Amino acid sequence: MRVAFLGPRGTYSEEAALRHASHASQLVPFGTIAAVIAAVQDGAADQAVVPIENSLEGAVTHTTDLLIHSTDLLIHSMDLRICREIVLPIHHCLLVQTGFALPLVRAVYSHPQALAQCRGYIAEHLPEAEPVASLSTAGAVRDMGSSTRPAAAITSRRAAEIFGAKIFDHNIEDSANNKTRFVVLAPHDAEPTGRDKTSICLDFAEDGPGILHGALGELASRGINMLKIESRPDRRSLGRYIFLIDIEGHREDEVVREALRGLRNRAALFRVLGSYPQPDTRESA
Amino acid sequence: MRVAFLGPRGTYSEEAALRHASHASQLVPFGTIAAVIAAVQDGAADQAVVPIENSLEGAVTHTTDLLIHSTDLLIHSMDLRICREIVLPIHHCLLVQTGFALPLVRAVYSHPQALAQCRGYIAEHLPEAEPVASLSTAGAVRDMGSSTRPAAAITSRRAAEIFGAKIFDHNIEDSANNKTRFVVLAPHDAEPTGRDKTSICLDFAEDGPGILHGALGELASRGINMLKIESRPDRRSLGRYIFLIDIEGHREDEVVREALRGLRNRAALFRVLGSYPQPDTRESA
Repeated sequence: MRVAFLGPRGTYSEEAALRHASHASQLVPFGTIAAVIAAVQDGAADQAVVPIENSLEGAVTHTTDLLIHSTDLLIHSMDLRICREIVLPIHHCLLVQTGFALPLVRAVYSHPQALAQCRGYIAEHLPEAEPVASLSTAGAVRDMGSSTRPAAAITSRRAAEIFGAKIFDHNIEDSANNKTRFVVLAPHDAEPTGRDKTSICLDFAEDGPGILHGALGELASRGINMLKIESRPDRRSLGRYIFLIDIEGHREDEVVREALRGLRNRAALFRVLGSYPQPDTRESA
Repeated sequence: MRVAFLGPRGTYSEEAALRHASHASQLVPFGTIAAVIAAVQDGAADQAVVPIENSLEGAVTHTTDLLIHSTDLLIHSMDLRICREIVLPIHHCLLVQTGFALPLVRAVYSHPQALAQCRGYIAEHLPEAEPVASLSTAGAVRDMGSSTRPAAAITSRRAAEIFGAKIFDHNIEDSANNKTRFVVLAPHDAEPTGRDKTSICLDFAEDGPGILHGALGELASRGINMLKIESRPDRRSLGRYIFLIDIEGHREDEVVREALRGLRNRAALFRVLGSYPQPDTRESA
């Protein structure tokens, strides 16, 4: 099994891919989310792990747009489905160049969003350090190594391991509630487990009051719980929206199957992105 | 009038603030979105301009979380409202160090998300250049200036003007449909104009099928069009969601007032974030 992920190695995307993969799997980094997805469509990989929500890399909208957009490409490329989700708690580590105490550090490297997430820690513990941007949390370790000033890096534990760097401090993020949701994409989604969720996207040809309300009635009238709803602008026409909805249940469950049929009849565009197990809340807590 | 914005000068946030401000306004940069908002609450500024959607700076969730969270702080701080929105098309410019032709450039500086948005352009026109991260698109101009290699920077037109840099190429972003939505926050929202929208947030004490469907019935039954809906995880308890909804109309319109009353009765948390004019679609196209 070859699993494609958003590289480089040592990022949180690799951590998510490691959680997903078995020991026999081969993890293959790609440079962009589009390339990760294309790897599965082209047969260069069997599965793809991509961030989808609340990502450090700012990748959320890019991934959902690619998932929606792939509907247009059905003729040309393989139709991928979500077969699993992985909720990864994001914990940042501090690395410091050998031989320097914290007050001596003059530069701290990381991805801008990781720097922002550790702003309080930096102000308290690295008062003299200038924040310097790196292209990824993994790249920050390299940037620290080639710094001409006494330097530190904010990165994942995994990147520290890969580079053989000693971790100076753990869990330095200001908010304890920092998580990224990843999805695993494959040619087929998952078998029913009895505790599943289904992701769909749809839009409506008409606009107007009550269109969405009517559609949600297909779920409510059947007692199907909605886990998430998001409207995203349709990139092709201003003022039209695509809805991304997660519901409880598997698309092969009879009641879900009926509701999806009802939604399909009301929608201009309708796509099941996949059915897959709900994450263990202990894992995601 | 003092208008606070997310600095430094030369970023797209300053461009949005300039669109909003009159000639008599004084624009004041702050280092974080939280500081921009606090500036109005503390009286250091009269209004705040912050990115809220599809932002280059990855600021979206941070801003909406601050808007929601401020409900908890009502006793301690001033309750701000959205009084305007500004949709800014994002166009990136290419700057090149004086004296170098494009094929000679070995480093291209920008914020990682701007680099990602111009990936195709870089591959085609700057094949030998290594992408290097900067903390902001404005900071990229400074980084280019101190580069020891032949360098370029991807930045806003405004940053080029501020630094007196010559623009080598315009509109180098790969996607023509790149926009950021900003909101203006102030102690009061806007007067009705006849073509307004109202932003609300709410959550429900109970969970279960049909709760949201029932709530949306308050809008549908009154013929009120919903412009946007988003569910966001409640940061305090996993599995509970806060809904951010934009509807057509002003909160002082009789029919909107009734609908809001109906929603308030169904919700555990309910807040009107503000009523303000719908943007001119020509401006936002």
